[in-house]
Amino acid sequence: MKLSNYLPILDWGRTYRGETLANDLIAAVIVTIMLIPQSLAYALLAGLPPQVGLYASILPLVAYAIFGTSRTLAVGPVAVLSLMTAAAAGNIAAQGSEEYIAAAMLLAFLSGIFLMALGLLRLGFLANFLSHPVVSGFITASGILIAASQVKHLLGIPAGGHNLYEMVVQIAEKIGELNMPTMAIGVSSLVFLFWVRSGLKPLLMQLGMKEKAAGMVSRGGPVIAVVTGILAVSFLHLDTQGVRIVGKIPSGLPTLGVPAFDLHLWEQLIGSAILISIIGFVESVSVAQTLAAKRRQRIDPDQELVALGAASLASGVSGGYPVTGGFARSAVNFDAGAETPAAGAFTAVGIALAALYLTPLLHNLPQAVLAATIVVAVLSLVDFKILRRTWAYSKRDFAAMAGTILVTLLAGVELGVTTGVVLSLFLHLYITSKPHFAIVGQVPGTHHFRNVNRYGVVVPEHIVTIRIDESLYFANARFLEDMVYTILGNRPDMKHLILMCPAVNHIDASGLESLEAINARLKDAGVKLHLSEVKGPVTDRLKRTHFLQDLTGNLYLDQFDAISDLDVDCAKAAVEKSGKLTEPGSVPCPSVTIAGVRETGR
Amino acid sequence: MKLSNYLPILDWGRTYRGETLANDLIAAVIVTIMLIPQSLAYALLAGLPPQVGLYASILPLVAYAIFGTSRTLAVGPVAVLSLMTAAAAGNIAAQGSEEYIAAAMLLAFLSGIFLMALGLLRLGFLANFLSHPVVSGFITASGILIAASQVKHLLGIPAGGHNLYEMVVQIAEKIGELNMPTMAIGVSSLVFLFWVRSGLKPLLMQLGMKEKAAGMVSRGGPVIAVVTGILAVSFLHLDTQGVRIVGKIPSGLPTLGVPAFDLHLWEQLIGSAILISIIGFVESVSVAQTLAAKRRQRIDPDQELVALGAASLASGVSGGYPVTGGFARSAVNFDAGAETPAAGAFTAVGIALAALYLTPLLHNLPQAVLAATIVVAVLSLVDFKILRRTWAYSKRDFAAMAGTILVTLLAGVELGVTTGVVLSLFLHLYITSKPHFAIVGQVPGTHHFRNVNRYGVVVPEHIVTIRIDESLYFANARFLEDMVYTILGNRPDMKHLILMCPAVNHIDASGLESLEAINARLKDAGVKLHLSEVKGPVTDRLKRTHFLQDLTGNLYLDQFDAISDLDVDCAKAAVEKSGKLTEPGSVPCPSVTIAGVRETGR
Repeated sequence: MKLSNYLPILDWGRTYRGETLANDLIAAVIVTIMLIPQSLAYALLAGLPPQVGLYASILPLVAYAIFGTSRTLAVGPVAVLSLMTAAAAGNIAAQGSEEYIAAAMLLAFLSGIFLMALGLLRLGFLANFLSHPVVSGFITASGILIAASQVKHLLGIPAGGHNLYEMVVQIAEKIGELNMPTMAIGVSSLVFLFWVRSGLKPLLMQLGMKEKAAGMVSRGGPVIAVVTGILAVSFLHLDTQGVRIVGKIPSGLPTLGVPAFDLHLWEQLIGSAILISIIGFVESVSVAQTLAAKRRQRIDPDQELVALGAASLASGVSGGYPVTGGFARSAVNFDAGAETPAAGAFTAVGIALAALYLTPLLHNLPQAVLAATIVVAVLSLVDFKILRRTWAYSKRDFAAMAGTILVTLLAGVELGVTTGVVLSLFLHLYITSKPHFAIVGQVPGTHHFRNVNRYGVVVPEHIVTIRIDESLYFANARFLEDMVYTILGNRPDMKHLILMCPAVNHIDASGLESLEAINARLKDAGVKLHLSEVKGPVTDRLKRTHFLQDLTGNLYLDQFDAISDLDVDCAKAAVEKSGKLTEPGSVPCPSVTIAGVRETGR
Repeated sequence: MKLSNYLPILDWGRTYRGETLANDLIAAVIVTIMLIPQSLAYALLAGLPPQVGLYASILPLVAYAIFGTSRTLAVGPVAVLSLMTAAAAGNIAAQGSEEYIAAAMLLAFLSGIFLMALGLLRLGFLANFLSHPVVSGFITASGILIAASQVKHLLGIPAGGHNLYEMVVQIAEKIGELNMPTMAIGVSSLVFLFWVRSGLKPLLMQLGMKEKAAGMVSRGGPVIAVVTGILAVSFLHLDTQGVRIVGKIPSGLPTLGVPAFDLHLWEQLIGSAILISIIGFVESVSVAQTLAAKRRQRIDPDQELVALGAASLASGVSGGYPVTGGFARSAVNFDAGAETPAAGAFTAVGIALAALYLTPLLHNLPQAVLAATIVVAVLSLVDFKILRRTWAYSKRDFAAMAGTILVTLLAGVELGVTTGVVLSLFLHLYITSKPHFAIVGQVPGTHHFRNVNRYGVVVPEHIVTIRIDESLYFANARFLEDMVYTILGNRPDMKHLILMCPAVNHIDASGLESLEAINARLKDAGVKLHLSEVKGPVTDRLKRTHFLQDLTGNLYLDQFDAISDLDVDCAKAAVEKSGKLTEPGSVPCPSVTIAGVRETGR
């Protein structure tokens, strides 16, 4: 419980030196330049005035610098959260209204409180309920949705739509209304930005620039597009020809203020705020972990919750909207050589200066250029290959992913991610509710026991050994009973049943009750129940109950010991039949065929 | 896919003989006599007119006789479902109104459709999501709630209340208004019924009656109380002194009819219908399994869903309300010697005759007597010992149980059971999200590998073996990465990491992605990742991906093989140090201490 666990700035701040300062400052300048157009674009995507994007890139960065455990993560507005904000705030009020802006700020505020609470309660594990397939599916579907939502800006069509189907239909209907100058700007920006992404870096390197510098410059593509767009509008007066521009952005810093408490509004937004928090956290942590791994640093997910919560809270009280750690900006920060979170704080100063002095220059920026930067950014999120890979590996995970993508595209982001979580949980419980089990026998001459259906093994008469390959808990307790009773019905000669439990990691109260019921029923049927290879922690827990006293048979540490011990009976029976005395266990008992037992497919 | 799987009547009907008929008829007569007061009482509990209880005991019994797989289960109204019906219908309309009765019928109808659909889709496993602790807690809390709700009838107080707190407060406030004759009847019935339960059977046996007959007669206690109550009211005209009586019950059979389709009403009731279905199914199946076990019969849970669905549907179209298999009546049926579901059909005939000809005789039946039979019946459901047993075994299961009880008592049945399900799922995911793992070493001179913290074991230098005791899936994928990276940070000398997987029953796509990330990160750090003792089915699945090709190390069937193989390196290193050549693996490498690794508490 060290204070520096909660305030990582105390750790890295102590060893801060001049050289580190220089590196952080350089990185901050580069990130600031890149962040300005990005912040405006994401505010546009969220349906908010452009200055809100800038405000969301000032105080949140300072908050993360104080509380964050990643040295290089850059927080701020990101594409997916902007889309989610638009969906949530759109339920409250019309885009552009005062209520809409207030709802977006409140989302950031609530999300900040929620994340900080999770972090302080060390409940970061909750984010694990989002499985990888659900997150990948959601990000891909969001990328498609975002790109589709920008088509109208690229072409200058007055279309709308809340899901992919509506967007496509409306664009198709209104394609005749497209604005040629807008389309010219939009499409040329798009082509330029795609080329910059793949073609500029090799070109610069051919021209003799070093790889790192070439990489940095090619990240600056959006800045070039923005400047060109502003110049084009200013000199050609394209705004009079129907090209929509950003327009007047108020200069100055955001005013601080806590959102008014309105219970009804809070209730309406809290669900969305929770979804935004979790998606933002998962995205940010995976970025932070990727970057930390490259420099052998570590991040603390619980403290990240606190830091991201502080950042969102800061955004909510300073005119911003929900923020998190973004991939693109963090990668630029990392490549630019940022060494500590101080780089983030310096970036905040840069953005604040931009908000104070730069906004008049952005007046003539065409929205189509911002739309193009969004499309290029989000299309890198779209990954269809993962669908094929997941299909090959697991049909169930594929189902969760495909369900998430479809529902996100057709019914929106909130329902999409909820569907994904529910599907993941459901499928997990479904698999574990019908666990794999095998009737096993001894591989002759060894201490190994294997599935009778897969190996040539010896099974003593009157003894059935079932290896159960799952923890026993409520979802499969009834299955266990059913399975044992079926075997009991099919094996009237059975005298001993051994449950072999090397893969049983837990037995919960439901599992215990099923074991008790099985023990009682087998007792009525004159069959003894034994357990073998039960793990230490599981045995410790069973010892707290009467079960081990009530057990008709024994608890064996080793399956071989169990068979050797019970074989005495079996050997005796063999002796009685043959009339000759043999050493117990020295001859394998006659192997019997086991049939009629329903077994899962592996 | 045999037809008799869906129509078990074809199975037992074929071998039906005269002797079976006689036994079934005797059982039917006994059950009919017992069912009449019980049906009236539960209708009262559900806030419905008394005849609804009778109607719910006619067609549903015929439907179960056709489709049911239990030979002795008796379906009809039960206490817990009556309480749940009152809660759900009470949200729609005032008790006693036409809309209230229609809502109760619709609940039966919807529940019937839901159960049949689950059964036909073979989705019975869904009922497993109710863990034993949640069901026990819910049944105990329901019993307390029901008993508390009857106190006003026992004392003749005009009190109400929707939860335990409200009931207690209202009874305390209005205790002055109690009606003395009602209290006399209520309390004496209660005392009599409790005495019958425990004292009558021994007494009859002392008087020379056989145990079985004495048991049957003592089950008839409610009938004696009912007859006495009717006689008391009739001769003493107690109804003029404020004793509430059942009053006029319409004679005749129910009219058949399908509920009108009203989307809004269906939407309001479907959630309650699903909860009623699942609770009814779980209760009924556990009764049926208990009875089937006694005669070495088997029931088929999926077909039970169909049968209970058909019974509820039949109730919904014939003026009844939700039904299921009840414990008390099934036990009577069993003890009375019922051999086939035909006994249920004969009982239906008996109840139909009662509905036609007996209802005038029930006019003067005091409600206090019915309340007493309810209290005595439900108090047998209340089981506090299970709380202590569960506490001792598992604090988490106890938390789920206690949560269910508290929420049921204070916020009602529907929220109670929902809380229980959510708590169970949450706690299960919580446990598996922080799985047990151990760093293991070789027990000298054996092929066994054990926890370095529990046993004196040998660990080769540069090799760390982690045994992970849980399936790798989305809930713990991130935990696994964190754990490995922590060990990586603490063991700069590590050259090989072996993940030992004998208890890993599944690896889902999230788990696979974590393994890929771990493999890549360890590769960067110059550490090889190996897997050992991976189960066959898990290996089969991994082979469908690139993971095994990308793996920097090897896949070993046996941990001993892994150590023997990798020890070559280790032995070489030892040789270089000592300058002497030794056979690889013949000398154990120097044991090293492993510290600083966070390990769960077992």
